[in-house]
Order: sequence, then structure tokens, then C-alpha cells
Amino acid sequence: MSDFTLDPEIADRLSRTADGLVAAVVQDATTGRVLMMAWMDDAALAETLATRRGVYFSRSRGTRWVKGETSGHVQHVRSVEIDCDGDVVLLRVDQTGAACHNGTTSCFDTATLLRED
Amino acid sequence: MSDFTLDPEIADRLSRTADGLVAAVVQDATTGRVLMMAWMDDAALAETLATRRGVYFSRSRGTRWVKGETSGHVQHVRSVEIDCDGDVVLLRVDQTGAACHNGTTSCFDTATLLRED
Repeated sequence: MSDFTLDPEIADRLSRTADGLVAAVVQDATTGRVLMMAWMDDAALAETLATRRGVYFSRSRGTRWVKGETSGHVQHVRSVEIDCDGDVVLLRVDQTGAACHNGTTSCFDTATLLRED
Repeated sequence: MSDFTLDPEIADRLSRTADGLVAAVVQDATTGRVLMMAWMDDAALAETLATRRGVYFSRSRGTRWVKGETSGHVQHVRSVEIDCDGDVVLLRVDQTGAACHNGTTSCFDTATLLRED
């Protein structure tokens, strides 16, 4: 259960996966660095829009989670845009601390498959 | 069939969906604007890494596609990074023309759900 309900106009725009989720791409509002990708159900998106905190849905645990709730590495959400297909949202955030649970700034700081040309 | 085979060391890093895909987040290398999200199978990733063209897998059509092959709106891939979970790759690209099939620079130019604060 959630205390947040998604605006029906926004809910109508969403094209969800079979398990009711949309992808969320999260970008640092200042540096432009892409920090992470996660998933949202309607309630997580509603809570994100209402609170300007990054809130997601864990597919492995089957529960919503507020980014930084235990680590303190919270996100202040500056803006949310939706893509042409309605299946991805783009968040621009002010990230406190590391975005990645491994302690790196971005989850994409792990490995480079193709180096800058 | 594909003429491109993924390096086994890279293949081992991937954590694929049930249908064998990883997500690809695509960012303009110059402006930092997130342009689109798409999906890749191993062959699409292999072709992307070998050719520095953005190549994806269409879940709706069940086929690989080279971005811009019909529209001319090709992508030169500057770098590819993989995330901590191995299920998302981040491409930084030089985008020719519009990234979105709707004619906008980015697929996220469609609608804002939460305005800049």
C-alpha cells in the first residue's frame, strides 16, 4: 500500500511492463553524469513526484524503496520527463553522496566496454 | 544471425532479461542530454562495439536494428560503459539529426511530469 496516488492523466501516459513497471533513468542535474537505472511502479512514481525524493520499485525484493533511506545517499529530484513511448522516465537529481551501492558516484563507473575515441 | 560475436569476457559480465537483453541508455556526448533508451541482445552489443554505430534489438519486431539505417539519423558511439549489475549499458554518442522517431532531439522532449525546481 502507498500513501501516494498517481495523477490519472499521468497514469494514462504510461506503457508498463508485464509486471507494471516503467524504467527510470537517473542523471545528475549538475554534471549530466548518468547515475543509475531503476524501475518504478505507479506508487513509486507518484511518491517521487509528490516528494521530490527518488523512490523506486525493487524487482528482486518486490517492494518500493526510497533511495538513501538507509545509506543517507538521498536524491532531490529536480525534474521528471517521460519518453515518447511512455515506458521510461528521466529524472534529473541532486545526488547526496554516492549513487551506487558500491560507493562509486555512478553505477556506470564500474567498467568501460569501449573507450572514448 | 549476426556477423558479430561478443567477446566472452564481456558476455560473462552481462545480466540479461529473461529474453536475453540488456538495457541501453544513450546520451549525447557533447550536451549530456539523455536521448533514448533501447534494448540490446549480445549480437547488437557486439556490433555496436565493433562498428561504433548504435545497434539495438527491437522487442516488438524481434529483430536487430541499426539506428538511422532508414532515417539517416545515425549514432557514432564514443564510449560504452556497463553498470554495477551488468544489466544496463551507457552509450555516449554523436547523434546525427533527431534521436527520436518523432523528430525531436531526445525521446524525453515529449512531456515533463515534474517541472524544474
